Amino acid sequence: MNERVTAQYPFYCSMKVQLRFNDIDMVGHINNSVYFELFDLAKSDYFSRVRHKELEWTSIPVMVVNINCNFYTQTFFNEPLEVRTQTEKIGNKSFTLLQQLVNIDTGEVKCECRSTMVYIDLSSFTPTRVAQDWRDAMVNFEQREM
Amino acid sequence: MNERVTAQYPFYCSMKVQLRFNDIDMVGHINNSVYFELFDLAKSDYFSRVRHKELEWTSIPVMVVNINCNFYTQTFFNEPLEVRTQTEKIGNKSFTLLQQLVNIDTGEVKCECRSTMVYIDLSSFTPTRVAQDWRDAMVNFEQREM
Amino acid sequence: MNERVTAQYPFYCSMKVQLRFNDIDMVGHINNSVYFELFDLAKSDYFSRVRHKELEWTSIPVMVVNINCNFYTQTFFNEPLEVRTQTEKIGNKSFTLLQQLVNIDTGEVKCECRSTMVYIDLSSFTPTRVAQDWRDAMVNFEQREM
Amino acid sequence: MNERVTAQYPFYCSMKVQLRFNDIDMVGHINNSVYFELFDLAKSDYFSRVRHKELEWTSIPVMVVNINCNFYTQTFFNEPLEVRTQTEKIGNKSFTLLQQLVNIDTGEVKCECRSTMVYIDLSSFTPTRVAQDWRDAMVNFEQREM
Repeated sequence: MNERVTAQYPFYCSMKVQLRFNDIDMVGHINNSVYFELFDLAKSDYFSRVRHKELEWTSIPVMVVNINCNFYTQTFFNEPLEVRTQTEKIGNKSFTLLQQLVNIDTGEVKCECRSTMVYIDLSSFTPTRVAQDWRDAMVNFEQREM
Repeated sequence: MNERVTAQYPFYCSMKVQLRFNDIDMVGHINNSVYFELFDLAKSDYFSRVRHKELEWTSIPVMVVNINCNFYTQTFFNEPLEVRTQTEKIGNKSFTLLQQLVNIDTGEVKCECRSTMVYIDLSSFTPTRVAQDWRDAMVNFEQREM
Repeated sequence: MNERVTAQYPFYCSMKVQLRFNDIDMVGHINNSVYFELFDLAKSDYFSRVRHKELEWTSIPVMVVNINCNFYTQTFFNEPLEVRTQTEKIGNKSFTLLQQLVNIDTGEVKCECRSTMVYIDLSSFTPTRVAQDWRDAMVNFEQREM
Repeated sequence: MNERVTAQYPFYCSMKVQLRFNDIDMVGHINNSVYFELFDLAKSDYFSRVRHKELEWTSIPVMVVNINCNFYTQTFFNEPLEVRTQTEKIGNKSFTLLQQLVNIDTGEVKCECRSTMVYIDLSSFTPTRVAQDWRDAMVNFEQREM
């Protein structure tokens, strides 16, 4: 479909997302800022699946420090869409989520976004080593070493 | 569930709606302005069902002139929600849509909104008599005289 | 200007509001749901002025139970806009705010919104009599008995 | 201030931006997706200044193909904010805008965003060489060769 797409590993998490009428801007397509709302929603779903429980965002010990998003093609109101999410890699104090917004019918990848997330100590709000139970949960979910 | 609810007729149109993480405001519940985004989305779905085809909003000859919304109870992020929509009455140049936001599991009506919509001549953008084919379609969909 | 406008008393509070590119929908005008975001912002400004201090919303003991909004005319991206806010009346356990969205240059009232707000006991989250210091502050700000 | 900030050239364009109550999410700070709404607004302002006229977005022959944003610190509701925008570099068929969201009082840079924008032929919607009058306007505005 789209040869520029850069995901190397399979996605084990996908979430159907619903557009709203007001997501469309005067150019007639989905406004870029909406993509980030959809990716945000899918992140919260991803963490709940990885941890096998519904999580309150306020209890998720992470902070986004970088977002890098490639926009491949426009999205229109009536397209059926899903967001795919994976942990791409885990570092010492941070990890990277890779997400794609995809037209479910055609498989076309609309945009692809990497979010670098720092693991933080929720009491002091400072970066700290990614806790072992979070590493294990992500490795287990993604079915590969990281 | 909620004795203040004022709908007199059954709803033949309901649409599941998806919340986003950023719909929740700092008070911890769904921000009021989000309700109107959801009602807007459901209106577009309603018109498509009534007319038996996907409609472009720009080709729907209506304009909202009044919104009257009762907020009964707060809504939280993980609630399964649907919007129910009906045409409540049809006048000469306008009609009224009644909508409810409902928790699917409990049946609780979160809020109830009436939108008065003026039928317009799309070329002159002025109010005009509701066209007969629109009247017929709404009456037919709602299964009662109006 | 607009003979349908219904405000009977002067406005002592007005706030310039800034539109965003994505407030405009595919029809080319400001989406209705945006009006409520602007009215919300102006409400928080109004309460801060009435109380002579910056207020956290979470510490404002009110809850919106009804919104009734008349839309008079469309709004476009480059219009200079302000929201005017007043307390229209105070009841036993509730009060009504009246707000207008106005084009600053032309004085045209785009829409006019009444919000019925219930005063609540923040500990039990139930309606209670509007506290005397809030009554006094609103009466004082509006310069008339209510 | 913030030693991680990477701008090398001065900013000749800054725009005050207004937050809304509903921009704040349940974590209590400005939701990330809001930053992109503010950057979008400032982009449209930047192009109008560079071209010395109010521009309709639909007539601006550009398309965003990549956004890369560093989030340095949280933003709260009552902070006075501006967005600074510059053209950082101009390539053959694309150019890069650099934007910062800044607390006006403290000078703190909240986040810094690079947008790669492809210049397009509006009739065929395909990438094309950045037109000379756009190059000249950007070089002139930024007061340096690119």
